[in-house]
Order: sequence, then structure tokens, then C-alpha cells
Amino acid sequence: MSGMRSGPQPLPVVFLTDFGYEDEFTGVCRVVIDRIAPQVRVTDLTHGISPGDVRRGALALAAAIPYSAPAVWLAVVDPGVGTTRRAVAVSAGEHMLVGPDNGLLWPACEAAGGVDRVWDISQSPRKLESPRRTFHGRDIFSPVAACLARGDEPAGIGTEIETGSLTRLELPAAKISGDRIEATVLARDRYGNLVLNLSASQLEGSFLRSGAAVRVETAGGREETVAFAGAFGDVAEGEPLIYPDSSDSLSLAVNRGDASAFFDLAPDDEIGLAPA
Amino acid sequence: MSGMRSGPQPLPVVFLTDFGYEDEFTGVCRVVIDRIAPQVRVTDLTHGISPGDVRRGALALAAAIPYSAPAVWLAVVDPGVGTTRRAVAVSAGEHMLVGPDNGLLWPACEAAGGVDRVWDISQSPRKLESPRRTFHGRDIFSPVAACLARGDEPAGIGTEIETGSLTRLELPAAKISGDRIEATVLARDRYGNLVLNLSASQLEGSFLRSGAAVRVETAGGREETVAFAGAFGDVAEGEPLIYPDSSDSLSLAVNRGDASAFFDLAPDDEIGLAPA
Amino acid sequence: MSGMRSGPQPLPVVFLTDFGYEDEFTGVCRVVIDRIAPQVRVTDLTHGISPGDVRRGALALAAAIPYSAPAVWLAVVDPGVGTTRRAVAVSAGEHMLVGPDNGLLWPACEAAGGVDRVWDISQSPRKLESPRRTFHGRDIFSPVAACLARGDEPAGIGTEIETGSLTRLELPAAKISGDRIEATVLARDRYGNLVLNLSASQLEGSFLRSGAAVRVETAGGREETVAFAGAFGDVAEGEPLIYPDSSDSLSLAVNRGDASAFFDLAPDDEIGLAPA
Repeated sequence: MSGMRSGPQPLPVVFLTDFGYEDEFTGVCRVVIDRIAPQVRVTDLTHGISPGDVRRGALALAAAIPYSAPAVWLAVVDPGVGTTRRAVAVSAGEHMLVGPDNGLLWPACEAAGGVDRVWDISQSPRKLESPRRTFHGRDIFSPVAACLARGDEPAGIGTEIETGSLTRLELPAAKISGDRIEATVLARDRYGNLVLNLSASQLEGSFLRSGAAVRVETAGGREETVAFAGAFGDVAEGEPLIYPDSSDSLSLAVNRGDASAFFDLAPDDEIGLAPA
Repeated sequence: MSGMRSGPQPLPVVFLTDFGYEDEFTGVCRVVIDRIAPQVRVTDLTHGISPGDVRRGALALAAAIPYSAPAVWLAVVDPGVGTTRRAVAVSAGEHMLVGPDNGLLWPACEAAGGVDRVWDISQSPRKLESPRRTFHGRDIFSPVAACLARGDEPAGIGTEIETGSLTRLELPAAKISGDRIEATVLARDRYGNLVLNLSASQLEGSFLRSGAAVRVETAGGREETVAFAGAFGDVAEGEPLIYPDSSDSLSLAVNRGDASAFFDLAPDDEIGLAPA
Repeated sequence: MSGMRSGPQPLPVVFLTDFGYEDEFTGVCRVVIDRIAPQVRVTDLTHGISPGDVRRGALALAAAIPYSAPAVWLAVVDPGVGTTRRAVAVSAGEHMLVGPDNGLLWPACEAAGGVDRVWDISQSPRKLESPRRTFHGRDIFSPVAACLARGDEPAGIGTEIETGSLTRLELPAAKISGDRIEATVLARDRYGNLVLNLSASQLEGSFLRSGAAVRVETAGGREETVAFAGAFGDVAEGEPLIYPDSSDSLSLAVNRGDASAFFDLAPDDEIGLAPA
């Protein structure tokens, strides 16, 4: 890390959790950061990740990091808080990431150019004194992120560990065999759009290309023919489409409608794709 | 615009969308803005507009703009993303507004003193390179808003077009004939208060005045007598009232209750008002 | 207050309401603050307090204030808006608090070291001119908080009143008699964890101590034996526990589960605790 930052310019903190919006949890983390590093800007990525949904949090971080200036990514989706899972800080490309070592940070590190160095911060000298073990967002992750954002050297905030020991996120792999693809729904967004475990780049040369008619079969026995399109408005209102979304993953949508309801599909459901 | 800003002082960005809080969409827009214009403050107006509800978004912008210092208003409620609808930047009074040309910006422009100039930013040189057409919030609107906020001249971010070509928002008009008013519910807020398409200033000289007893008839056949009052506490708990709300629109409420449930009314429903 | 702040350094504003996230209400307050004090940072504590739930708002403020640098706390949970309840500003320790005089500010003042001085701001010269009485967040509380944050003397924003006249929050008291404790659920968080009206310090010497097995009886007739533990992971997945939470209140939880559903309990419900 030494040499990565040439001056005293602080980094912004980008903040993601599954804490939701009903309670004071995200605000408490922010006042902790403000107290340590009042000069640091904090941007909320989202706090609406479903409780404990590590995969959804990981995909959100990975979707955002390519668009950001160098930043400290503070991420807490942490069903194992208070157990022996490690707390870590990671440097990846121009970014630092801070959070639980449960796979949450992995895809964003990959998107940022790969993991460069990792520190175990479970016993960080920067953690707040607290007899409690249930709010590491406040007591460990926020103070460490604040210190890194203001320019503290990582060596002072944790113990360096092997990069290979960082927990990876396991995503289900799509099965592509000739004109048959078995895919899994990874996420559903607010509009009901469904993200699949297929990146646009995986599909070069396959039947999944612009203008194709595609048969979608769901485990629930539903069969629909949908157009491979570039935008919602390329099909009529109420009609389904499959398209490379804004993060370059294949997604199912319905123009001005809700694909999750239309197909009766939710995250983790499997579908089959074939030429129509 | 030249001469409107005398120095290098950046404008704040005020940010409204229907992106919701579950996904990373608003956060991605914010890191895009931060990368282009780190000196610019961004304030969230709300991101909880119902998906595609252009009218609700437009009313929220119009309610806020009279209270704000000069700012760039970044607004994205955009069911037509990826179609041929234009992306625009507008100067209105002391403000700039950036968003889709679907009526969303119109009432706020009116509230700010009227449309002064309009630029088509659909092919802005400031847009992000992206092969995708489904996330203009990230790829067009946010970069343009960031450039305007840091002080770029609008001439460099789009092509000036006729002010008269900006899409207006059509609101249903209330019918006032003597002692009978037919009105429409425009919006429901979190507390269940119902905003009508009647401004306080329209009602001078009518039977709708402080202290009046008013008969409310709903399309569902419900009839209630309510007091015209100035604040919730002017009627007993659980009692309905009609009042000029904080944006000077007539609204229906129930003191410490939910008018939407009480009257069984939702946006777009029509009601009749008459002296009780 | 004179002498409390030595220079022109502005204080941050920490902002809590029950305004929710669907409407523009919090954003309007923020643009009001930005207009008066653009140099002031505003941090959202939460705006997701249930409508009118003064107690939940008060507990959220009290949980956050010990972790914060000196700040102005702008808090609006105000079912009595527009009635004769007073609007107040309070100095407590290093903090200022601004909000309705309905008990909302009381526990946070206590947590900050006690009430030092109180000003009635109902007729503040800093309030916005408005003929309306339904949005004091915008018209009174935000402008006053902005003025205090930028360093205005409180004497100029209201009329000093007796500290003893500040409305206290009445919380139900737990009954501890030997090996039997009657407690009340004060709050439920997003994860379904249930906060009780018992602080960890109250329990020294009682049967409620680390490692104990505790019988929980609900008014609904449910009886469960739960472990007194330090973190969720100290019990098996799906198992209940009672633990001192991050604010040092006793809470009921289920490891990777929802205690509110498990016990069928909600705020205001009473439970009995005894040795198992």
C-alpha cells in the first residue's frame, strides 16, 4: 500500500449493508466514521440488501466498483457476526474494501483488478472498546474504514495474511451445451427484473444474440418465447425480453412490467434457455 | 446561462428517482457523480417514488424547489428508458434540471419561474461509453448533472432545442361549478394523507374556507362530513379534515389516522365536494 | 452555550424522522438546511421510524449519541404537529438537540450527560414564513438546526425556558422480584430482534447472567428455555437466546432467525423471565 496514496487527500467511503432503513444502525456507523474522519465523504450504495443475503450484497458491490474513483468500500452483510469468522481489509487495484470474510468482498475485488493484499482486522487496534459482540459494523468495520479513508497505513490497522486465504464467493455456474443453456436466477431488482448467472461475453457465438427468439422454460413448467433485445422499449408493453443488463449480465424483464411475477421466478430458481 | 454563475463555486445536486432502496442503482449514480465532481454535495430528495410514477416524481420536485438554493436537480423516473424519448437539461430560474423528457421536470420548472432554455443531452459528449441502453441514470443523467454542478457550460453538454418542445405534464383539472367541486386524488403520502388537484389559491371565494363543514363523496359511495381546518390537531383524534397542505394543495387527512384507509381512496380516484 | 464552541467550525447535523422514504419530506428539510448552512454536513440517522412512534425514535437517538462527535440532533417524530405542543432546542453535554417537546429528545439528553439548557423555538425568528401549520420539520426544526450548526447563539433562536419543563419520556419499568422478572418489549429491529426494558447493568447479581438457562413466558402462553449468551453464534442456528445488545439492553434473538416471529411478540408485549 505504501506509495499507493501520494498525499493527504482522503478517500471517500462507499457504504453497503443489510441493516435496512427502519433502525438507527447505518446512522450509528456514520457518526462513528464522522468522529474519526470528519473530512471524509460517505456515500450510501444501498442498505436494503435482504438480511443475510451475502450474494446480493456481493453483486451490488461488484456492479458499482468499476464506476468509482478510488474509494474505501465498507460492506456489512454478516450473518456470522460474533462467531470466529474473520474481519478483513483488502486492497484491490485502486480500492480498499472492509468487511466480514464471508465472500461478500470477493466479486468486487475481482472487478477492481484482483486481490493485492489482505489484513485480518478482527483484533484491530482501531476497533472500539465494547464488551459486546453483536455490532461489528459499529465497533470494527466503521472505525477501520474511517482510518483507511483518512490515510492511515493498513499495517497499523491489522495483521497481514495470505491473499489466498480470503474467502471466495461461490456462484452457481450456468451449463452451456450446444443449443441448451441451464441458468440460475441470481437476483431480482425492484422492478422485478431477473439477473441470470450468464455474462454477455460468455455468449459470443451462441444462439443468444440480438434479435433471436428464445424459449424460456421454468422449473414451474412455464414456457415462454421471448425476444433477445437491447432495451425494454424494443418489445411491446407487457411483453417479455432477455437482454444484457447494465452490468453486462443476461437478465429477464417485461417492458413496463414485472418479470418476477410474469415468470413466477425468484432468486435461486433455475431455468432452461433454447432457440425458439 | 453565461453570467448566471459568477465564479467557480459548484452547485449542489438534488437527486430524485424511482430506483428504490433495495438495489445499488442510486449508489452507482452517486459514485459516477463523485468521480466527475468530487467537490459537489449530493442531497437525496427521495428514491421511493413508485416505479414509473412520473406524476408523483414531478410533484415531489415541485414541492421542494421553492425551498432550495440554486441547484442541479437530477431526476430519473423513466419508464421509457432506451426508447426514443429525449434526455434533457433545462435551465429554469436559478436552477438546472436534468432528466428524461417525459413531463417529470415540468412542474418544478414552473415552480422555479418557468423554462428558460433546454438542451437535448441524448447524445451528450459527457455520457459514459456503454453498449447498454437500460441505465441512463448512470450513463447519461448523472455525468451530465455532475458536469453542470461543477460549472461546465451547458453548450458543451448537449444541443440547444426550443423551450416549447419540452414535454409538459398533464394533470387532471378539477371542475368547480358553484357549490360543487369534482376533484381527483393526485398522491398519497406515507401517513395516508391524500393530495387533491386543488390549490388553496383556486378556492378564494368558494365554500371551501376555514371553519367550513364539507361533504365529501367518493366514487365508492362513501359520504362523510369533514371540517376545513388548518392543522390535524384542530379536529379530534380519528376525525377527518380537509386542509391546505404544506405545498398549498388541498388535502384530506385524519388526525392521527390514515385518510387513504378511512375514505378508501387512492391516487387517480375522483371525489365530489360540496357544502355540508 | 457561550464558550462551548471556540471557533467558527460548524457542527454536523444528525437527522432522524418518521417521514419514511416514499415522499420528498426529508429531502425538503435537507435543502432548507443547505440553503441556510451549505458548509454543514448532514447525516441521516434513520427516517424509517414508524409514523408517530416517539418511543422508538427516542431510543434510536439515545443509542447513537454516545458514539458521536459534538453535533446538532434534528429529530422529528411529531404526531402533535400544529397543536400547542412546544418546539424546543436543548443543550446536553457537547450536543444540541432540536425537535418537538414530546419526550423524543429526553433519553438522548440523558445519554449525553443530562439537560443543560432549553429554549422554546415555537416562535423562533429563524422559522420560515409559512401560512401552514403541518410541516414544522421544514418550517421550524430544520432552519433552527441549520442556524445552530453554523454557530448561531441559541439566544437568537428562541426563548430560554426552565430545564425542568422539558417533557420526559415515560418508559414502562421492569419488575424485578427475586427470581422473577416482568419485562416489556420496547422495540423490534429489522432482523426481528426484541429489545427489552432491562439494561445489562440492572441485572448484576441476578439469575440473568452469562451461561444461564432462562425461561421466557409470553402473555400468549408460550414458554421457551433460552440461553443467556454473548452473541448469536453462541447458540445453534434457529435457537433463541437472550443477550446484552449493542446498546447494553437485554434483547431476545434467534440465531439467523426472527425472534419476533419465533416468540410471537411485538413492542409493548409483556414477558416473564425466570431461571429455567
